[in-house]
Amino acid sequence: MTFPVVGMVGGGQLARMTHEAGIPLGIRFKLLSDTPQDSAAQVVSDVVIGDYRDLETLRAFAQGCDVVTFDHEHVPAEHLRALEADGVVIRPGIEALLHAQDKGVMRERLREAGVPCPRHRIVADPEDVARFAEEGDGFPVVLKTVRGGYDGKGVWVVRSAEDAADPFRAGVPVLAEELVDFARELAANVVRSPHGQAVAYPVVESIQVNGVCDTVIAPAPGLSEALSAQAQELALKIAAELGVVGHLAVELFETKDGRILVNELAMRPHNSGHWTQDGAVTSQFANHVRAVLDLPLGAPNTRAKWTVMTNVLGGDYPDMYAAYLHCMARDPALKIHMYGKGVKPGRKVGHVNTYGDDLADVRERGRHAADYLRGTITE
Amino acid sequence: MTFPVVGMVGGGQLARMTHEAGIPLGIRFKLLSDTPQDSAAQVVSDVVIGDYRDLETLRAFAQGCDVVTFDHEHVPAEHLRALEADGVVIRPGIEALLHAQDKGVMRERLREAGVPCPRHRIVADPEDVARFAEEGDGFPVVLKTVRGGYDGKGVWVVRSAEDAADPFRAGVPVLAEELVDFARELAANVVRSPHGQAVAYPVVESIQVNGVCDTVIAPAPGLSEALSAQAQELALKIAAELGVVGHLAVELFETKDGRILVNELAMRPHNSGHWTQDGAVTSQFANHVRAVLDLPLGAPNTRAKWTVMTNVLGGDYPDMYAAYLHCMARDPALKIHMYGKGVKPGRKVGHVNTYGDDLADVRERGRHAADYLRGTITE
Repeated sequence: MTFPVVGMVGGGQLARMTHEAGIPLGIRFKLLSDTPQDSAAQVVSDVVIGDYRDLETLRAFAQGCDVVTFDHEHVPAEHLRALEADGVVIRPGIEALLHAQDKGVMRERLREAGVPCPRHRIVADPEDVARFAEEGDGFPVVLKTVRGGYDGKGVWVVRSAEDAADPFRAGVPVLAEELVDFARELAANVVRSPHGQAVAYPVVESIQVNGVCDTVIAPAPGLSEALSAQAQELALKIAAELGVVGHLAVELFETKDGRILVNELAMRPHNSGHWTQDGAVTSQFANHVRAVLDLPLGAPNTRAKWTVMTNVLGGDYPDMYAAYLHCMARDPALKIHMYGKGVKPGRKVGHVNTYGDDLADVRERGRHAADYLRGTITE
Repeated sequence: MTFPVVGMVGGGQLARMTHEAGIPLGIRFKLLSDTPQDSAAQVVSDVVIGDYRDLETLRAFAQGCDVVTFDHEHVPAEHLRALEADGVVIRPGIEALLHAQDKGVMRERLREAGVPCPRHRIVADPEDVARFAEEGDGFPVVLKTVRGGYDGKGVWVVRSAEDAADPFRAGVPVLAEELVDFARELAANVVRSPHGQAVAYPVVESIQVNGVCDTVIAPAPGLSEALSAQAQELALKIAAELGVVGHLAVELFETKDGRILVNELAMRPHNSGHWTQDGAVTSQFANHVRAVLDLPLGAPNTRAKWTVMTNVLGGDYPDMYAAYLHCMARDPALKIHMYGKGVKPGRKVGHVNTYGDDLADVRERGRHAADYLRGTITE
C-alpha cells in the first residue's frame, strides 16, 4: 500500500469530520487524542491517547505519519519547532501556525502585508486601554488575550478603564482593538496546497449569538460581486503571505460603509465552512486532507442556490437522539452532523445543514431543527 | 448518551461506507471483521476480530449492540435463528435474510408473490438441464448455485447438457433460468423501515462487464415513466412482502419487448446504489442506517441531472495513490471512493462518482478516471 498516513493532533469534531472526509480517499488517518471518549476518537481506528503538550508523546505519534496536521492551535510552539527539526512534515506549516497561536503577532503580520484590520495594539494595563481608546473614537474597546481564546472566550468588550481589569489577570499579553461598527460578519474560506494551488469557496455570512457562531449562509446574501471578489482575494493573499497549507478561514467584518476588515483567522477547517459538507462539490474537510497531502484540490463550487449551516448547542434537554424522530420526519432533506459529545448548556454538539432555492425556507428548516434538537422548542 | 450502537457483521467496503455515513448521525458503530486489515476495520474505532461462522463469536459481538446488520449474506442461517432466539434485533430480518441466502427459495417466494421472473426451476443434473431447456426455447440456459455466488461467480451460461457439469460439482442445489434476451439491465433501489416507511431511489441502468458491475447511470436514460414506476413499485412490493428492513437492491432485466423481470436481490447497500453518495440527497448507506434504527428515512431525490458510478477494478498497476495526481488535476469535481483494499487484477477496489448535465461528459469523466486508476490508460 502506498497510501499515506495523515496524523491529526486533537480529537475534536474537526478531526472527526476530517476523518469522515478522508475515508473515501483511502488515506490512513491516525489520531492523537486526550481521551478515548473525544469526538474523533469514537470513530477513528488508529488512535493514540496522549497529551499534545508532551513533546515525547508528539514525537512518538509523529513516527509513521507522512504528514501531521492539527484540530486546534494549542500545541506549544517549541514542540512544533522540535518536530520540524526531527524532519516531521507539519502542515499548515510552522510559521503559519505560530501566527495563528498569537493574535498580537498575527495582527502585526497582517498589518505589514497591507491587510485591512481594525485599529489595534498590544496594551499593558487598564490605563493603557484608556489611552488606546483616546487614540481613536473612545470606548467601547475590544480586548483579547493573544493566546487561548475561542468561541467568545478570551474576548471582552469594555466600556471604561475600570471595566478592563479581567483580561490582564491571565498573565497573557492583551491586544486592544477598536469595536467595529459592522453591518454584518462574513467569512472567506480558502484552501492552499504546498506548491501554491489554491481554491476559494464562496464568501459566506456568519451570524454570531453571544460570541458563538449560530448560522452561516452560503453565499452571503446580497454581497456585491466586487466585495465578494475582494474578500476572496484577501483570503488568498493571506494564505500565500503566511505560507498556509490546508484550510484557512478568514473571519471578516463588513462595515456599514462597504469595506471589509479582517477579524480572526483559523488555519484549519472552520465552523464557517461546515456548510461545504452538503453545499459544495468538495467539502472543506476533503480539501484540507488533499492540501496537506499536496494533492490537487477539489472544486469549491456550490451545489445549491442557498446552503445554511445552523449550529446545535447543548441545552437543558440531554436526549438529542430522541429528537431525531421529529426532525427527520419533518424534514427528510435535513442533514444532521452530530459530534458524539455530551450535552452541556451552550456547548457546540453538532450542526445541521439545509439547502434549497428559497433562502427563508432553508433558514427556517435549519433553525427549527437546531432548536428542536436543543430542546428550545417541542413542536 | 442515548445514541444507539449499530453492529455490523463483515468488514468489507459496504461496512466501511456505512460507517462513514453513520458518523454524522452520531451513532456508535461496532464491527465484526475477519482481520484488522479488512476494508472497514481500517477506519472503525470499535472492531471485534472474529469469525462470523462461529456462533459464540456472534453472540459475544451482539452483546451491547442495539441492532445487528450485515455487510454480506454469508452468516449461517442457524446462527441467525440462535441470535434471534437470544433476543438480538437482526435487520433486515431473519426471513428476509434467509430468502437472500438461497436463490431457489427466493425465486419460489417471488413467484408466489406474483413478481415477474425469468422462467426457472431447480435442476438435478446435466440431463435435467437439457429437459429444462426443452421445456422452453432450448439452450443456452443460465445455471446458478443457490448459495455463495456474487459478481459472476457461481453463475454459468451453458449451451448443452455436456457443458453443464461444473455447476453440480459444489454439492449445492443448482437453479436453472432462461437466458433472458434483455435490452439492458436496470436496478431499483428502495429502503424500508420496520414500521413500513419506504423510499424509492430513481431506477438506474447498470452496465455489466464479464458479469461484474462496471457502470451505473442514474437515472436510467430514456426509461419510460411507466416502466420506471413499475420497477419502483415492484421493489417496494418485494421489500414489503419479504419484510425487508434496510436497503433492498432489485436487479432487473429490461426485455426488448418492454417488460421487466427480476434478476437478483440484495438486502443491504449495493453497488447499484453507490451513486447516491454524491448524487442523492440521502445516500443508500445513510438510509440503511436510518432504517435499521427505525428512524424516519431521508429524501432519495437526485442532486444532479445525471450521476454516473464507475467501478475501479484492480489491474496490473498497483499504485493507485500515485494516479490521484492526474485524476484530481484533470477533474476537480471527481468523487473518488476507495476501499483500502490491496490491488488484485479484477478485484473491486473502489469506485468514482461523476455528475452533471451532459451525460456523455459525465460518463467520459468516470470512465477516464477508472481506467487511469486501474492503469489501463496512462494519459
